Amino acid sequence: MQPLSDQLCGCVMFARDRVGLLKCFAAKECVRQLRVSATRKNDSANQRPSTASNENNYIPMKAAQPQTTICNVCNATIIHKWQYCQFPRELDSTSFAELLPDIDTFIFDADGVLWLGETPIVGSPEFFEYLTKQNKQIIVLTNNSNRSRRALLAKMRKMGFTGTSEEDIVNPAAIIIEYLSSRGFQASGKMVYLIGSQGFREELDEARIMYFGCGPDPPDGMDIDQENLLDKDAFIYRIGLDDPAKEVGAVIVGFEKHFNCVKMMRAANFLQDENCLFLGTNEDETSPGPHPKTVIPDTGPILAAVKMAAGREPIVVGKPHAAAFHFICSKWGIRPHRTMMIGDRSNTDIIFGRRHGMRTTLVLSGVHSLEDVQRNQRAGLVDLLPDYYAPCLGSLVS
Amino acid sequence: MQPLSDQLCGCVMFARDRVGLLKCFAAKECVRQLRVSATRKNDSANQRPSTASNENNYIPMKAAQPQTTICNVCNATIIHKWQYCQFPRELDSTSFAELLPDIDTFIFDADGVLWLGETPIVGSPEFFEYLTKQNKQIIVLTNNSNRSRRALLAKMRKMGFTGTSEEDIVNPAAIIIEYLSSRGFQASGKMVYLIGSQGFREELDEARIMYFGCGPDPPDGMDIDQENLLDKDAFIYRIGLDDPAKEVGAVIVGFEKHFNCVKMMRAANFLQDENCLFLGTNEDETSPGPHPKTVIPDTGPILAAVKMAAGREPIVVGKPHAAAFHFICSKWGIRPHRTMMIGDRSNTDIIFGRRHGMRTTLVLSGVHSLEDVQRNQRAGLVDLLPDYYAPCLGSLVS
Repeated sequence: MQPLSDQLCGCVMFARDRVGLLKCFAAKECVRQLRVSATRKNDSANQRPSTASNENNYIPMKAAQPQTTICNVCNATIIHKWQYCQFPRELDSTSFAELLPDIDTFIFDADGVLWLGETPIVGSPEFFEYLTKQNKQIIVLTNNSNRSRRALLAKMRKMGFTGTSEEDIVNPAAIIIEYLSSRGFQASGKMVYLIGSQGFREELDEARIMYFGCGPDPPDGMDIDQENLLDKDAFIYRIGLDDPAKEVGAVIVGFEKHFNCVKMMRAANFLQDENCLFLGTNEDETSPGPHPKTVIPDTGPILAAVKMAAGREPIVVGKPHAAAFHFICSKWGIRPHRTMMIGDRSNTDIIFGRRHGMRTTLVLSGVHSLEDVQRNQRAGLVDLLPDYYAPCLGSLVS
Repeated sequence: MQPLSDQLCGCVMFARDRVGLLKCFAAKECVRQLRVSATRKNDSANQRPSTASNENNYIPMKAAQPQTTICNVCNATIIHKWQYCQFPRELDSTSFAELLPDIDTFIFDADGVLWLGETPIVGSPEFFEYLTKQNKQIIVLTNNSNRSRRALLAKMRKMGFTGTSEEDIVNPAAIIIEYLSSRGFQASGKMVYLIGSQGFREELDEARIMYFGCGPDPPDGMDIDQENLLDKDAFIYRIGLDDPAKEVGAVIVGFEKHFNCVKMMRAANFLQDENCLFLGTNEDETSPGPHPKTVIPDTGPILAAVKMAAGREPIVVGKPHAAAFHFICSKWGIRPHRTMMIGDRSNTDIIFGRRHGMRTTLVLSGVHSLEDVQRNQRAGLVDLLPDYYAPCLGSLVS
């Protein structure tokens, strides 16, 4: 946990008190932070917003729907009938240049921000070059473990991104390996049952962590229970779980295109041992791809299936969860209020930035659009609202 | 909705009032029903349970954890600090014989109640024979669509179950076909994209509903985007969604052992059309199999994955959802309070029975055990508690 003075509460919450006055119900420490924030942003967030409901920047919630919210600075439960969500500001090259002196570190999501599939998003490499010249710290934090950090760097180099090394890239594999290594997993002699792509395998190989289970697992090729041949088209009964040579100490679930019922059943059965760790890379529902109209499922649906079959909750290390933040803090010692998280997904990148006291920018070149932002604002989903938005990284440099 | 007088509220809820007295906060109509229920069951449910917390039959909830519950008779929200859940009564052949005159209809779950895999549960066929002799209505209501009703009847006959015809069997396929037929699906010329087993296909064939998508779909055999060969080990980008001959009017998700990422992606993409129906057979997490220590994932995990990838909620027809109840009511005109639901799963069979005003018995021959019942009681999960429990059907007849 960072010191409170390093964090800013991005949300402003009010409730009508008994005599009908709007009153901020945030905890004292938050009110102080809100004042700092309001002064800095030059808005009227710390004043009674008696006329604010008619201004473009504010959306009043219906008084008939009292809600509770957890303050993302002090974790206090705030009961409020009215809530004003400030709509994010659009950034352009001028306003971004004004903001730049306040930011030391930029954390970028990759898919949908830097590239789509194998195509760089126009202007993103130039933006990296610009930040490098301004001596800013660049960290690439992706929820995608389909490539190793080495392969990701090679992809970035090929696309013209400069100013980063392999060390500046954080993927779920890096966080999971750090987690396992800190628990002496390599020395335990236990194995990982892996649902993951080639990139994850390369990372585990390099960290000398033993794993198995990758690749195709045709259900028809399994050891179907001969006593139950009548049901051979239905459930799978025996899948060779009994190999004594493989003591499974962890099940890791990431994206694997070969994921199927056999893998789900294996994972669920290994996870019946409560000492077996259950780690997920990320919970993204979909991934932005080269064909905008095609939905590409990501790890979220795979993890949802495995955890329901296993009856257990995993530790998920990707954004917006805390493991990624702790990993970055321990490696770089960033100051959250001088850090900008830039991503294309509200429910991973933006929540991640807000939860951990960073400034946040949504780029509209990936999964979430301005319509999504408007919908979240109408629904009062404060944690999904970024501070800023921009069409793409390229629009921030002239 | 059945008339209220045909229903009984199985739960008894109390809260401390301002002066600390325990008071029933259920709606008036429910209190009346509770009195009927209490008189019939010869317990003290309608009296102030001042000493009940020390009796075996009652578990007091912590006063520090106020909860709300929806009354399953009148749908009122009941805020209560104390809740007493009556532990289910064990039934044996004597107490069951006493109960028998009050019950006209028995609804049975199949897997875990009648059989495990291909083996009948000892005593279950004899129980059917006994009920048939007593002129009771028998309905088999399974969430399993791996076999058609015809194949299920053949399985039952082979195992020695008598007294039922194909018409007495209800599976999700039957409910879904009724649903589609009532909407003129066959005449629309549209197709179903099916994630389902052979049994489901046979039912659709018989109903003359067109479908496609069944069987293995190896991700390596798909039309991988040639521009994106570098990512060939990661996401799947093109899966042939553009066939104009197939206008998909419904996506149906049941259990299919060939379920994999390609099927998940196809379903998610067809479901982007909001006019495309999204139907799920059931949400069971696991299925009881012949090897008690082996977890067999059921449809629940598959449906969880598809709905997360699609970003939509399905209409689920299996227990505990209302579609199965409406189907049975329209076909048999059962009287819920004279109907007994017998199942092996608290979160499908027992909730289904309770929600729809039936009596409920949990048999311990399938998924849920007496330890699960005790855990649910401690957690105050009233809807998961059956009225009765028994080791298996065979234990109910001498």
